[in-house]
Amino acid sequence: MVYNYIMKKVIVDILGGDNAPHAMLDGVVLAARKDPDMHFVLIGDEVIIRPKIDEAGIALRCEIIHTMESISNNEPPTNVKSKPNSSIALGMMALRKRDDVSAFVSAGSTGAVLAGAVLMVGRIPGVSRPGLCPLFPTLDPNKKVLVIDIGANMDCRPEHLLHFAIMGNEYMKSIGVENPRVALVNVGTEDKKGNELTSATFPLLKDADINFVGNMEAKDAFSGKYDVLVCDGFVGNVLLKTAEGAMKLVSQRIKAEIKSGFISSLGGLLIKSKMKKMKAELGEDSVGGSVFIGAKKPVVKAHGSSNAVAFSNAIALAHNAGKGDLSEKIEQAIARCTPPANEE
Amino acid sequence: MVYNYIMKKVIVDILGGDNAPHAMLDGVVLAARKDPDMHFVLIGDEVIIRPKIDEAGIALRCEIIHTMESISNNEPPTNVKSKPNSSIALGMMALRKRDDVSAFVSAGSTGAVLAGAVLMVGRIPGVSRPGLCPLFPTLDPNKKVLVIDIGANMDCRPEHLLHFAIMGNEYMKSIGVENPRVALVNVGTEDKKGNELTSATFPLLKDADINFVGNMEAKDAFSGKYDVLVCDGFVGNVLLKTAEGAMKLVSQRIKAEIKSGFISSLGGLLIKSKMKKMKAELGEDSVGGSVFIGAKKPVVKAHGSSNAVAFSNAIALAHNAGKGDLSEKIEQAIARCTPPANEE
Repeated sequence: MVYNYIMKKVIVDILGGDNAPHAMLDGVVLAARKDPDMHFVLIGDEVIIRPKIDEAGIALRCEIIHTMESISNNEPPTNVKSKPNSSIALGMMALRKRDDVSAFVSAGSTGAVLAGAVLMVGRIPGVSRPGLCPLFPTLDPNKKVLVIDIGANMDCRPEHLLHFAIMGNEYMKSIGVENPRVALVNVGTEDKKGNELTSATFPLLKDADINFVGNMEAKDAFSGKYDVLVCDGFVGNVLLKTAEGAMKLVSQRIKAEIKSGFISSLGGLLIKSKMKKMKAELGEDSVGGSVFIGAKKPVVKAHGSSNAVAFSNAIALAHNAGKGDLSEKIEQAIARCTPPANEE
Repeated sequence: MVYNYIMKKVIVDILGGDNAPHAMLDGVVLAARKDPDMHFVLIGDEVIIRPKIDEAGIALRCEIIHTMESISNNEPPTNVKSKPNSSIALGMMALRKRDDVSAFVSAGSTGAVLAGAVLMVGRIPGVSRPGLCPLFPTLDPNKKVLVIDIGANMDCRPEHLLHFAIMGNEYMKSIGVENPRVALVNVGTEDKKGNELTSATFPLLKDADINFVGNMEAKDAFSGKYDVLVCDGFVGNVLLKTAEGAMKLVSQRIKAEIKSGFISSLGGLLIKSKMKKMKAELGEDSVGGSVFIGAKKPVVKAHGSSNAVAFSNAIALAHNAGKGDLSEKIEQAIARCTPPANEE
């Protein structure tokens, strides 16, 4: 039997996440309604899953792998190996072995998801380190920016950042961005700026077969000027979380200011629905999760706190990352960039 | 003649900054009006300075060092050595040699200011690396958080971060914060989180004579939970600039949303003054600049784009940093923390 990409199934962990299993199941239903071509392998408690998919009328598009075992955030990530019946382990094994599945999505333990992807699914040949990367909103409502890596790799060497750049570039092309503008996260835009890592990385990115636009400053991260931001996982994590904290600072201060007067309270009522819309667009629910690129098949880590809407977006993200030939493209692109040490 | 701290003068670079010399002079006048105890050494063109301070009635509190030479942002920072008549070099030499001055403030080239502070004023004995640190607003309108370092030191060793922590702690105490809560910028709050640098730094901070509250995540940077955030200059720079970018993202999106409808436009008018107030509180003008701590006397780097209000705040920052015995306190605190390698 031959499967084409339309028929390939997304594997969904129903047991991972703060709001599992119900938010996860509701997310599947939402995703299924939005895209009638999507098929699923649902991993979790059949007793809970079955009535839900029957009721939603999507049972024919769902396969169930029954388990009641999960991995908590407090367990060592490598438990993914010692607990083969956990939902993450079962999902990773299915992703590795089956030809009819395209991607895996989980809102469970980040560590276990990344460990499972590397240890059980394996890396794309040539990729030194897979990278965890979310799409972030920008000033341009029609453009998102990919930040790679945001926490899978704490201490990086220049060649890791080169691979992040190549993978990010291929990923953005795969979701329709033409000639993605790839930039190196730095403390200034001048070529010579930065620390030892960025100084050594700059020439590698300049020589790579990508549209490298140079160093960038974090204040322009969300300007829409860039499509891919390359950094080590420590810096990427600080970048993402600072943005979260700063956005919270502004919105809470605005709320407090508006509530502090009668006239402004009235004004606050009049802009309420617009504020809600903006919050939905800028909030983490809008993207749903981060893709772990560099594993043989894409793995999506949804936020632990995902609600049904956020999780449905994460499922769509996994589906989109899995339906093309991203892994082959990455393998070819990495092969083209022979590391300097091996040049003849 | 004996000077007490009230009489000590703040040295002000009138030639540095995008809006020099007029915004700088206006900033001096504002600062002088706010604090009748403040005295100044103004470095710049006497022909421009004299009429201004006469008109403002502050001539008796001002001394002028005349020069028309400055260092641009495009020059190598070490030009501070080869241009002894530049305003930054003259200011640094006065700071080093004179007993009647307490601090120096400039909106000129960051590189030249930092180089001048290290090369001409010199470090406090025992301090491995001075740190550049701004005070940032938090969710609590009455609390600010210090981030050290935000760009003076790109590649740091654990003992550099230890010194940042000690200096940040003494600085916050000097401006009235009791028992400052010092945290290490990291990717999670657990003790074992992080990269090689933070892992090696954690035990040093734990053993130091400070109120070390552990690792923190950047999303809580502005929560008001911490008083001092310790990180290397690359990470600190990303943190500060990401915050700037994210705040811009939110406020521009809000503006666009509000303008997109009639009702919300009306609401926008009603909240306009409150938004302006919030912008003034959260914007960079509210603090005015970053203190470079670890030089023998404090040096304040004001934003290059400073207007008069921002620059007057930077002058106040310098005055406050310089009026106590911060340098002595730092020297003593550093001396108390013998590095592990030298322990007996």
